[in-house]
Amino acid sequence: MSADLLVPETRVLAVASHVVYGYVGNKMATAVMQLMGCDVAALNTVHFSNHTGYRQFKGTRATAEEITALYEGLTQSNLLDFDVMLSGYAPSAAAVEAVGAIGMDLQRKAEKNPGSFFWVLDPVMGDQGRLYVNDDVVPAYKKVIRHADLILPNQFEAEVLSGIKITSLATLAEAITALHAIYNIPHVIITSVQIASLSDSPLPNTLTVIGSTTRSDGAPRLFRIDVPALDCYFSGTGDMFAALTVARFREAVFNADANLRHTKSWVSPDHVPATELPLAQSTRKVLASMHCVLEKTLEARDAELRAIVPDEGEKLLSQEDQQKRAHLRESKAAEVRVVRHAQYLREPEVEFQASEWRREDLPAQFR
Amino acid sequence: MSADLLVPETRVLAVASHVVYGYVGNKMATAVMQLMGCDVAALNTVHFSNHTGYRQFKGTRATAEEITALYEGLTQSNLLDFDVMLSGYAPSAAAVEAVGAIGMDLQRKAEKNPGSFFWVLDPVMGDQGRLYVNDDVVPAYKKVIRHADLILPNQFEAEVLSGIKITSLATLAEAITALHAIYNIPHVIITSVQIASLSDSPLPNTLTVIGSTTRSDGAPRLFRIDVPALDCYFSGTGDMFAALTVARFREAVFNADANLRHTKSWVSPDHVPATELPLAQSTRKVLASMHCVLEKTLEARDAELRAIVPDEGEKLLSQEDQQKRAHLRESKAAEVRVVRHAQYLREPEVEFQASEWRREDLPAQFR
Repeated sequence: MSADLLVPETRVLAVASHVVYGYVGNKMATAVMQLMGCDVAALNTVHFSNHTGYRQFKGTRATAEEITALYEGLTQSNLLDFDVMLSGYAPSAAAVEAVGAIGMDLQRKAEKNPGSFFWVLDPVMGDQGRLYVNDDVVPAYKKVIRHADLILPNQFEAEVLSGIKITSLATLAEAITALHAIYNIPHVIITSVQIASLSDSPLPNTLTVIGSTTRSDGAPRLFRIDVPALDCYFSGTGDMFAALTVARFREAVFNADANLRHTKSWVSPDHVPATELPLAQSTRKVLASMHCVLEKTLEARDAELRAIVPDEGEKLLSQEDQQKRAHLRESKAAEVRVVRHAQYLREPEVEFQASEWRREDLPAQFR
Repeated sequence: MSADLLVPETRVLAVASHVVYGYVGNKMATAVMQLMGCDVAALNTVHFSNHTGYRQFKGTRATAEEITALYEGLTQSNLLDFDVMLSGYAPSAAAVEAVGAIGMDLQRKAEKNPGSFFWVLDPVMGDQGRLYVNDDVVPAYKKVIRHADLILPNQFEAEVLSGIKITSLATLAEAITALHAIYNIPHVIITSVQIASLSDSPLPNTLTVIGSTTRSDGAPRLFRIDVPALDCYFSGTGDMFAALTVARFREAVFNADANLRHTKSWVSPDHVPATELPLAQSTRKVLASMHCVLEKTLEARDAELRAIVPDEGEKLLSQEDQQKRAHLRESKAAEVRVVRHAQYLREPEVEFQASEWRREDLPAQFR
């Protein structure tokens, strides 16, 4: 990678899960950010053999005390010169609070230099209508996200946090408006909306990402980006999105008006329209990179699965065991090929457009 | 990074220490190998806030049982398709044995396909005449290294393992010959020899790396590469060397005679002279990359230290506390700048030559 393709020097504290094999959590985020040129400090909240999509794994979870101790280790040696914190999966409510305390401490230390520290928080709680964390993690996140600069919930997490069921573009806009208002969060991206299932916008085979940077009157500045959906579920794509966003958003802020990077939470002035927001520009690139890497992953997955010849012994297994083996093979084959396709992180070959919202889709008070 | 600069696809299991901040152990090795295009599974043996050169750190060590459990997690989900294992620091004798058992298991599984799996072992025990592990780690390594394909001791570790005190080129050759013979290890690289201190070869400001691939009669095929020493101690350079060697040695083997990659332990036929060995070709590139990255690190370190203005409060501290702060700053400033200079991993700007040994420096039986 030639140096001129790297994003501006960015020191990131990444707090999330580690897996030995494959690419999810901090394993994904660290690789992606390093391949983009970021200097990453990786504080791992779990140490698992593989991601849970395999339906079996071994390993240990860090306690809240262990997470706090690692941060104290950094503190005592003055190793806190982070530009961005990216926080993802934490294995308990106490761990969410411990990670939250880290983010708040870093923000306090940066108070005198607005814009010098930025916290991206991925409130990992569940997906597809289902929580996969303990119930007490939800109130823990509700306390913590008030302090974040950008949150990256998926559709379900946005519903949980906003209290608004998303069934249409209008309710989606309401949910984002509520997230800005309730938690005072400057930036929100809802990372995956099954827009096809929304009553008023039936686009088949499309994944829609919705983002917003708040205006000074509390109005959302909503942009949407539609990308072709790939016919495969890949684990770790949320972490990939978050990592790319860290690198690209800061780059976009550096490319914007020179004052923006010295503005608290990098909130653009009111005259900047939604589609011109650094967050929108950044998200376009993020999604383009993801699309290229995932397309290559899909090709490689299909080739890997085609090449498998089940051995004779396998045919003697029970149907249940055969299905289990097949599931393990498919999970492995679908691991995101991020390292071999790093060039698409830097220079995606496709381009997506951000589009404005129709006035009538905005909440009543902002039409 | 364009795809054509990547090394051949290589799946690596890397077992070593993790630090949140900075670049040593698996944090260094994983980043380097990923930046070269390798797919890395990272099994972390410790979880520390920072490297021990800071003289203070927080965190936890993995037990032998935890290391074994993570490997069982990989095993039960058929996630063992590794081409290479790189094993480094393990925090106890039991952990060394646990890591050794992993290497042996992977070798057993690859037995029917010679050359399909290769184990690089860095016997991390001490440096500069001093052990920094428990005494019982030494016999643990002596048992385990018999199974490795390539070991990467520094001068002190080579002395400990061979039982030969290295005081001259002749004793150095004897030590390597002994390592080949006692432990049946095909490849050895002694990663740092202070050749200036050897009685018969006073080269000032030079770091010498000595390597050898055994011949079928047990003779060492010794090559040496002299590189200019930089005036700074950097932590993690051993891990960087090991990681680059994983990527480059396999690449060199793939570039050699087509049979070599299907030969047990990638041992070249007897007619290949020392300086033409894939190990020698690989080490030349490894050292060139390291020289470039460390030179850039030195520049960045000096700039960082020059820019520091001690605050007023610091002058009120005790001399001891002032020295401690200065040490922490210097340790931080000397963290290897590997991510921002990834292009030198792929394309180093300098070239070093491997040279042959004089006959009279070889052990008597091989002159």
